[in-house]
Amino acid sequence: MHPATQQHPPTGSDDDDLLLGIDIGGTKLAVGVARRGRFAITGELASIAKEPVRGPGRPDDLIPRALELARALIAGEGGKLGAIGISIGGPLDHLSGRVVNFPHLPGWRDIPLCDRVAGGLGAPARLDNDANLGALAEHRWGAGRGFDSMVYLTLSTGIGGGVIVDGHLLHGVGSAAGEVGHITVRTDGPRCPCGNRGCLEMMASGTSIARRTREALATAPDPILLRLAGNDPAAITAPMVLQAADEGSALARGIWEETAEYIAVGLGSIIHILAPPLIVLGGGVAQAGEKLLEPVRRRLRDHVFYVPLDRIRVTGAALGHDSALTGAATLALTMMPDGG
Amino acid sequence: MHPATQQHPPTGSDDDDLLLGIDIGGTKLAVGVARRGRFAITGELASIAKEPVRGPGRPDDLIPRALELARALIAGEGGKLGAIGISIGGPLDHLSGRVVNFPHLPGWRDIPLCDRVAGGLGAPARLDNDANLGALAEHRWGAGRGFDSMVYLTLSTGIGGGVIVDGHLLHGVGSAAGEVGHITVRTDGPRCPCGNRGCLEMMASGTSIARRTREALATAPDPILLRLAGNDPAAITAPMVLQAADEGSALARGIWEETAEYIAVGLGSIIHILAPPLIVLGGGVAQAGEKLLEPVRRRLRDHVFYVPLDRIRVTGAALGHDSALTGAATLALTMMPDGG
Repeated sequence: MHPATQQHPPTGSDDDDLLLGIDIGGTKLAVGVARRGRFAITGELASIAKEPVRGPGRPDDLIPRALELARALIAGEGGKLGAIGISIGGPLDHLSGRVVNFPHLPGWRDIPLCDRVAGGLGAPARLDNDANLGALAEHRWGAGRGFDSMVYLTLSTGIGGGVIVDGHLLHGVGSAAGEVGHITVRTDGPRCPCGNRGCLEMMASGTSIARRTREALATAPDPILLRLAGNDPAAITAPMVLQAADEGSALARGIWEETAEYIAVGLGSIIHILAPPLIVLGGGVAQAGEKLLEPVRRRLRDHVFYVPLDRIRVTGAALGHDSALTGAATLALTMMPDGG
Repeated sequence: MHPATQQHPPTGSDDDDLLLGIDIGGTKLAVGVARRGRFAITGELASIAKEPVRGPGRPDDLIPRALELARALIAGEGGKLGAIGISIGGPLDHLSGRVVNFPHLPGWRDIPLCDRVAGGLGAPARLDNDANLGALAEHRWGAGRGFDSMVYLTLSTGIGGGVIVDGHLLHGVGSAAGEVGHITVRTDGPRCPCGNRGCLEMMASGTSIARRTREALATAPDPILLRLAGNDPAAITAPMVLQAADEGSALARGIWEETAEYIAVGLGSIIHILAPPLIVLGGGVAQAGEKLLEPVRRRLRDHVFYVPLDRIRVTGAALGHDSALTGAATLALTMMPDGG
């Protein structure tokens, strides 16, 4: 008559504990709650709340709002909160749980985010950057299942990544391992806002694809691209370039191949250093699927000879937009007494 | 009256076991024996035998000769052989103990080297490549003491390396991790024998320094360099270039700065992927010491911004030419029952 009670004795088993994930982005805030027992098997969040960042998004606005959303989800699920994982972009110290600098929103300098969230919700909290948590989620629940080691890249407006070695996220000094967007892939390339030249992010992000296409259009008008952009080159986006390539635009095909080449040069450096058995490409640009993966794999064969490429799987991410949030809940899972 | 017997009871303590290191190079064979107890503290080999590779150097010549040298050293030391570590260059499978291909000597394809050495000497054997074992030796006994993670590069006629993460050598697929000589550091650079363009090895090895200097001399004669080379540009070596830079040759200084720049680009990619707390430069080119390290550190500041460089030590190797042999004995040490 009370199946739920029968499954979960009133004393409350560990499996019934709740895990909380919080994902703080430059434009959106997302919170997700998972029931530990189910999550450890499926990687599925039980409930999610997402909203745009309202107002300026300072820590004193956003942290209380995240706590409010979390309390509402926890109350809805019912149960004891066991642990909290937090995803945020930019420099942070995963050991002390402090955000060093979150450049997308004002006032986020040297913020003891974990202490504030843990204090507000009464459970231990850890944080990591969004790309690392995307890697953790893909490793545990997505394309990385069954692999000990992998490198994850998220190809989006920017490019980030995470490195997993023998089942563990690699952090490095300043929690800065996996900054794969700033590998040099074109020595004489344009200067990146980071200060380096020809960074992977400058040459292969969605922003770069659109920029390089606009630059090429200035000297070689392309009717297919112009039609897709409503005759406004400034409106060009990376998906339009892919679409135009599909429709036969030589210019778009050239840009796309060039993008694959830059990614292959970057992956080549990663492969020569780590020889990982798996590379997972996620983020908006990677939603092109085989249209990106095929030329990247093909061009890798021009750059890698001493590492056996036939033993390196290069594939797309299996999880979608919520991978950082799922990764945050996964971080919470790993904090539970018997690991998860 | 019998201090040796008093220190080492006749039953034979583990500390009295012998460890054997074998280093098979393209031109030389080296064998070293260590007494475990002392080696575990000092990293010092008790006795070493080295000789040039005589004759063609096929496996059926070289392996028996290595066993012969090993037996002589073991007999000289007296004691029970506990474990064997073997260093060799080129593709190998550290798990099965097979040499896939050692391109510097004939007949070295798919050779079960560990089985043959272990069978011949009656102790377990493992192998790894020379750069990985150099990394292991530097980590345990040299510049890497006290660091959990590090990247080691050997800048010699070629460029190799080894990656240590959380105290363990990273192997990757095909035991091919640490092939840092083939990171792309100049996208439009000359083609490397490996097939890729602008590899670190093509731009910054001792061979490359000499080649680039000869090329530059063809259009800009330099009296200092020509004098050092006895008026024979073909005789130029990397140490001559360093010497000429010291003596004020602008051409040599330019080549040297360019070399530091290529190394900095390569280290930049390594740093963005791993953010290691320590990078150790070994091999002949790194014997320039601060004359190499200073410009490399300075130029790194043009390439790395999101990883805190002030927390990454870039330094020279502490061990000398025998680091691969010491690393082989260290590998043997790690094979002993209680780890070492």
